[in-house]
Amino acid sequence: MRIDDVRDVLSANDRRAAANRERFRSWGAYVVNLMSAPGAGKTTILERTLAALAPRDRVAVVEGDVRGSYDRERLRAVAEVPVLQINTEVAYGGECHLDAVMIGNALDGVDWPGTELVLIENVGNLVCPAEFDVGEACKVMVASVTEGEDKPLKYPLMYATSALLVLNKVDLAAAVAFDRAAFLANCRQVNPSLEIIELSARTGEGVSSWLNWLERQMRAAR
Amino acid sequence: MRIDDVRDVLSANDRRAAANRERFRSWGAYVVNLMSAPGAGKTTILERTLAALAPRDRVAVVEGDVRGSYDRERLRAVAEVPVLQINTEVAYGGECHLDAVMIGNALDGVDWPGTELVLIENVGNLVCPAEFDVGEACKVMVASVTEGEDKPLKYPLMYATSALLVLNKVDLAAAVAFDRAAFLANCRQVNPSLEIIELSARTGEGVSSWLNWLERQMRAAR
Repeated sequence: MRIDDVRDVLSANDRRAAANRERFRSWGAYVVNLMSAPGAGKTTILERTLAALAPRDRVAVVEGDVRGSYDRERLRAVAEVPVLQINTEVAYGGECHLDAVMIGNALDGVDWPGTELVLIENVGNLVCPAEFDVGEACKVMVASVTEGEDKPLKYPLMYATSALLVLNKVDLAAAVAFDRAAFLANCRQVNPSLEIIELSARTGEGVSSWLNWLERQMRAAR
Repeated sequence: MRIDDVRDVLSANDRRAAANRERFRSWGAYVVNLMSAPGAGKTTILERTLAALAPRDRVAVVEGDVRGSYDRERLRAVAEVPVLQINTEVAYGGECHLDAVMIGNALDGVDWPGTELVLIENVGNLVCPAEFDVGEACKVMVASVTEGEDKPLKYPLMYATSALLVLNKVDLAAAVAFDRAAFLANCRQVNPSLEIIELSARTGEGVSSWLNWLERQMRAAR
């Protein structure tokens, strides 16, 4: 694509993102765009989140995958909340990210007034998802200790645009000789204001910190 | 992008890939395009590979990253082989993959006659790298047991287009309760002819199988 084409695409995306944001606002929903590399643990974190919040808050999910609805099925097994599935392979050429148009098209089929929280699980990819505003209130990224300490420096945009980093799989830190201090220093280098919560979605350690953070954000946005 | 634009981009890529392939052939080099999600262990596998092969084979590496030359520095610490660094952030808009134009432009600065093996480390991403022929003889992907068993179904193109899957971090399989049978079944579903080698680049277990595979391919291509 030429630079002008890229500008057109991003400008069209931003117009649609503003429309999505207005729709979320009309419902009263706080919206998180959850991003990570494949396998970092987004879906397991969402399972924990739905198990805790769905009984008392009105929550909905948008799932982004190249193919399939495996994560939708996992989440529906945890809580009976609405889960929209977007497959980029079907209508969007196998794109490696979600954009505002995909989210907008998916939302055109639904009306969720009174929904307090919308969790958008992006396609697993450390690069392009960070480039697209989808109308979220907040970008949250997940990293896992098994990915190594150097990723903030090699994939800086996602680390730079996220408000919160959830560092997952801390139960494996010793097994992979994870250098926590080096990782945190690399995070600070690309985003000095990045908040960081460490947890293991598998064991449950630290999950309450994430839930508390999320509820603080929802309250502050009201 | 419209469909016509996508076709133009891919056709331009394939013309450049053919030129790259002819250049590799003129050197007598076997070329591997190594792909994976971020943090699956491509660089650690390349460290092991260079340590074993560089003393007796003429090897060169092309490193693809959004930003930085951290992997180049790691590899240069293992063996004094040529390592070209491509940063997609600098000249290619932060692209999430390598394509034939990037590789061709990087090769324009070098001449490596007699090189027997060129290892191309793609940008860490399970989606788009699989869409671009860069002139390689063979696509090899790395998956790690910490990514989960469902990834072949959710990111099918890379699994479908790779000749070999290196399943890394098998030393962590018990810690993450990795369901090996389910993973292998999912691999077979998207690519019945996919070869699979299991190893741990960290401990060294299984690495000799990968080295033997690589040497068989190099011999067969001569």
